[in-house]
Amino acid sequence: MPYVNIKITREGGVTPAQKAELIKGASDLLAKVLNKSPATTVVVIDEVELENWGIGGLPVEAYRRQAKG
Amino acid sequence: MPYVNIKITREGGVTPAQKAELIKGASDLLAKVLNKSPATTVVVIDEVELENWGIGGLPVEAYRRQAKG
Amino acid sequence: MPYVNIKITREGGVTPAQKAELIKGASDLLAKVLNKSPATTVVVIDEVELENWGIGGLPVEAYRRQAKG
Amino acid sequence: MPYVNIKITREGGVTPAQKAELIKGASDLLAKVLNKSPATTVVVIDEVELENWGIGGLPVEAYRRQAKG
Amino acid sequence: MPYVNIKITREGGVTPAQKAELIKGASDLLAKVLNKSPATTVVVIDEVELENWGIGGLPVEAYRRQAKG
Amino acid sequence: MPYVNIKITREGGVTPAQKAELIKGASDLLAKVLNKSPATTVVVIDEVELENWGIGGLPVEAYRRQAKG
Repeated sequence: MPYVNIKITREGGVTPAQKAELIKGASDLLAKVLNKSPATTVVVIDEVELENWGIGGLPVEAYRRQAKG
Repeated sequence: MPYVNIKITREGGVTPAQKAELIKGASDLLAKVLNKSPATTVVVIDEVELENWGIGGLPVEAYRRQAKG
Repeated sequence: MPYVNIKITREGGVTPAQKAELIKGASDLLAKVLNKSPATTVVVIDEVELENWGIGGLPVEAYRRQAKG
Repeated sequence: MPYVNIKITREGGVTPAQKAELIKGASDLLAKVLNKSPATTVVVIDEVELENWGIGGLPVEAYRRQAKG
Repeated sequence: MPYVNIKITREGGVTPAQKAELIKGASDLLAKVLNKSPATTVVVIDEVELENWGIGGLPVEAYRRQAKG
Repeated sequence: MPYVNIKITREGGVTPAQKAELIKGASDLLAKVLNKSPATTVVVIDEVELENWGIGGLPVEAYRRQAKG
């Protein structure tokens, strides 16, 4: 009965089909590696606004501009 | 000073009054079982979009359709 | 299918029976307020070392000493 | 490679500049105290609706009214 | 730069090799479905004591006994 | 009344004094940037075993060896 939380930035229009793939993929992973029944594996996806996500001491967008700069 | 996080699917119009009940109920539970002062018990409710919640390897809505099917 | 996470400080010897009460209480709360089936309500309790919990800008123990002082 | 999650109530119009300050401040803190490289410190800010945040057994707004009352 | 948190019960001796598989599998999943670079995907695994995990209103072990009974 | 969660790898002997610095620093940051009262800012530090933390598709230690290699 694992619980998986996936946090991603909200951008680029993640579709319901892609989310379904993430849910299935995470459940399958726990089943394959640890023999956990998918029946009770819960997956929660959080989409985080770009300005609320930081890396390298910067908001993501500033970080990407700098990385390219 | 416990911290309680309640994640539920965003559906069916959970009202502010129901949220207040969840907050009071969680604080009371910690007070009753562990004698924690409600004064410093923090409760955070997260409402998660249906398409972002998975169980049984499927998004919730697909899971429910299958369970009924 | 709610998910409830309860974080408490690790102190005073919380017993398995008390944890069972927290689990039952949280499931009952979601059933009572939002009509969620306890069958799929997941509860995870985290016990956090005292030195890892802060409030008022201080680790819990220093905070309590100050509050009493 | 620390991960920092900051949860605040959604109110008062937190600006992107303030969020950038939180991200930089959290990264700097980990660098100063534990010598963690900011390059791999991730910061995620969650803004929580007022009615979804409870303290003292009450939703935040009711709590504040009572505290003043 | 996704962040993935996998919570499982601490039982049955999950090996470092299995944890490495979970980490690789979660990174690969995000790369495959959303084209996220594994370089910045963070995965954190939490192992939760059995008595701290509840489902169906019961601690996991009691739940399993009942399910079999 | 913010809630801050800081996850770090368990290594190198983080001292209680360093944890106290993290707690104070996080509270001060929220006070400075958003004028949040430190009195109700909660900080929880999680120390995660090295083998439970992954980046770049690898457990941290393997990742570091590769980065140096």
